[in-house]
Amino acid sequence: MLYGNPGKSAEIFVINNEDVMAIISNKVDYLDGDILLEGFFAFDDAIKSRRPTVLINHPWAGRSPFVEEKALKIAELGYFAFAVDMYGKGVLGQSNEECAGLMQPFMDERSLILSRLNAALYAVKLLPWVDDNKIAAIGFCFGGLCVLDLARSGVDIKGVVSFHGLLGAPEQNQAHAIKAKVLVLQGHDDPMAPVDQVFALQQELTQAGADWQVHSYGNTVHAFTNPLANDPDFGTVYKAEADKRSWISMQNFLFEVFAY
Amino acid sequence: MLYGNPGKSAEIFVINNEDVMAIISNKVDYLDGDILLEGFFAFDDAIKSRRPTVLINHPWAGRSPFVEEKALKIAELGYFAFAVDMYGKGVLGQSNEECAGLMQPFMDERSLILSRLNAALYAVKLLPWVDDNKIAAIGFCFGGLCVLDLARSGVDIKGVVSFHGLLGAPEQNQAHAIKAKVLVLQGHDDPMAPVDQVFALQQELTQAGADWQVHSYGNTVHAFTNPLANDPDFGTVYKAEADKRSWISMQNFLFEVFAY
Repeated sequence: MLYGNPGKSAEIFVINNEDVMAIISNKVDYLDGDILLEGFFAFDDAIKSRRPTVLINHPWAGRSPFVEEKALKIAELGYFAFAVDMYGKGVLGQSNEECAGLMQPFMDERSLILSRLNAALYAVKLLPWVDDNKIAAIGFCFGGLCVLDLARSGVDIKGVVSFHGLLGAPEQNQAHAIKAKVLVLQGHDDPMAPVDQVFALQQELTQAGADWQVHSYGNTVHAFTNPLANDPDFGTVYKAEADKRSWISMQNFLFEVFAY
Repeated sequence: MLYGNPGKSAEIFVINNEDVMAIISNKVDYLDGDILLEGFFAFDDAIKSRRPTVLINHPWAGRSPFVEEKALKIAELGYFAFAVDMYGKGVLGQSNEECAGLMQPFMDERSLILSRLNAALYAVKLLPWVDDNKIAAIGFCFGGLCVLDLARSGVDIKGVVSFHGLLGAPEQNQAHAIKAKVLVLQGHDDPMAPVDQVFALQQELTQAGADWQVHSYGNTVHAFTNPLANDPDFGTVYKAEADKRSWISMQNFLFEVFAY
């Protein structure tokens, strides 16, 4: 199939391998202090060894089917996928107002983000499928901010990927040396992360000694990976090209950071 | 091999396929008006059909072994590769001064760039291995500027990729609608293309209706794909990570633009 079709792409792997998949998925309770959280995990049962592991951080709505689908797609890539819960078991925002209300406490007290993510890291390392020397984290929108804050904390994981993430640094940014490689996938016209914030992040990551990349997509606004996003006035619109391109870039990034 | 190694990447294709390569390469004379030019082409003889074709535009030194190697690597991807000659058969700059002297006439009269590139397009379309409905162009440094100018001309090709290119628009920019998809691969600390020029290009491409992406690499300056570049004071330093990442991004871009 490949040789008859000149051109090589990460995509082809996914196409070629769909037929050998046996994806197991389930939910698992875990705690951050006394807060009960519910993660969703998925992996390809055809792989018997411990797997490089990808934490998936949800947008402001919470640990919705959107991130569960991403977890299944990550599992298809051969990784152990764990969709993190930041809000609490079963807590999902419906309206923009509800979602904003759920997210705001974490924006007001950024250390809460680290507390939740460190709880998730602790939980996944207890799971028997996880290679705890090969962990990365991806996130979408609010989840992008979460994985950037995780990297900012100087945590020793392989990499983080932010999809149309919120970018602003915490006010009391500890400016740790950033060990995780960073990939930021951004719509150039994202009203929630305007160009000056992208530039500020680039400066911040450089000063923190991070190995970083920013991929900027033209004519693309916020939430470009979400097929349900269709609110141009609010600045959230799905864009198939950017969705596809960013997913391929993430694949190659994960392959790179897990290769060492 | 793949299934024992979780993670999918465009890289693996190259690794897996090196052993089936039978790369043919040669030089070919062609003309722009009465200027004799010498291209270098390469293709994989294992592919019998007409191939998607990639023009390769050289840095300021001229059609050197650097672009010949890139042509061989493009051929390994299954495409017909044609390294363009902008300066004239056998003309190569040795010192920075010579290279600047060769490039300057094209910077002073940008229409010369289009004249040379249209001559190259005409020449490749006469070759029996070329699918002239699937043509893209890549370029390095000065060659990046050349392929951006080609896109700016509104030419009907599938895409252009600029590696650490010079970005400034021509003074008399005709502002054609840009049909070619555009991928710009840039070092964030490139002194020949500072951040404000990247931003200006993003605005220009948006206004021209282009489908564009910019990938920005942190802690990376000019000429990051050139293993011989090692002049921090001049702002040209090879960077293996950015070289590798940009080549993978180009692979996926070419796969995408040739798929339609």
